[in-house]
Amino acid sequence: MPPPSGPTPESIITDADRNFLDLAIEQAQIGWEEGGVPIGAALVHDGEVLAVGRNRRVQMGSAIRHGETDAIERAGRLKASVYRNSVLYTTLSPCYMCAGTATLYEIPRIVIGENRSFQASEAWLASNGVQLDVVDDPTCIELMNRMMTERAEIWNEDIGEEA
Amino acid sequence: MPPPSGPTPESIITDADRNFLDLAIEQAQIGWEEGGVPIGAALVHDGEVLAVGRNRRVQMGSAIRHGETDAIERAGRLKASVYRNSVLYTTLSPCYMCAGTATLYEIPRIVIGENRSFQASEAWLASNGVQLDVVDDPTCIELMNRMMTERAEIWNEDIGEEA
Repeated sequence: MPPPSGPTPESIITDADRNFLDLAIEQAQIGWEEGGVPIGAALVHDGEVLAVGRNRRVQMGSAIRHGETDAIERAGRLKASVYRNSVLYTTLSPCYMCAGTATLYEIPRIVIGENRSFQASEAWLASNGVQLDVVDDPTCIELMNRMMTERAEIWNEDIGEEA
Repeated sequence: MPPPSGPTPESIITDADRNFLDLAIEQAQIGWEEGGVPIGAALVHDGEVLAVGRNRRVQMGSAIRHGETDAIERAGRLKASVYRNSVLYTTLSPCYMCAGTATLYEIPRIVIGENRSFQASEAWLASNGVQLDVVDDPTCIELMNRMMTERAEIWNEDIGEEA
């Protein structure tokens, strides 16, 4: 696993970015309260929120509803041009499934709450030309710390690791 | 887009492989009859079919239910060790979303009905150590020929291309 990127300079993260990331964090918190994996996401097109989503492994018995894929699914069927002018906000650095989904739809920018708890796909995404901005947000880190401590078995299942 | 691989020598494709691919083809045919994208898949563990699936973009209004992801979703929550001893059968070479999903779960082998109609992820999967076997099946090719001719707009949407 390549080393995670350092945080993006604060000047790159706009107030609007912060607000959209907060929507993703709210989803992560709801997911935690539901007994699930606390990872949330938001898909934003031209400043408009198309959908928010959260990991639903536990809630829906799902193997493919991560925060990012859930947000993309809830946004519904969209034209290629919409994805190509969208930003994906996620509380945690994307796994390869979510990175592959963003790659399929050519989403050009991903704002990442944190990548200390997990990081797999960033070098690959960057090599595909995706702009990655890492906020290093303490609330995102704390949620994942609790997840990996209190629900370690579900977390391993979620990332395809042996428990 | 890298050039597609040539077909795998017939000796590598066992009778069991052929039967599992036929299940995926049956799913693709059902999807076509439903008005959808004719791509099907099967997830097989140790010779046992865990689930079959098909592209459900049209049927469910879905942006993430490709043949492969639908099969993986329908297989439900599984331990890492199950995926790591499974084979994914798909009628068409996987897009990056489906390739990323297989990569997340470390599925070691993918049997591909055909890759003439579409190919994006094979070099990446191969570089990750995934065994790819391409059958070059005429029924799979014919289904995709009809799709790309008769439902071109939906097909472009499905692979994130401008119509």
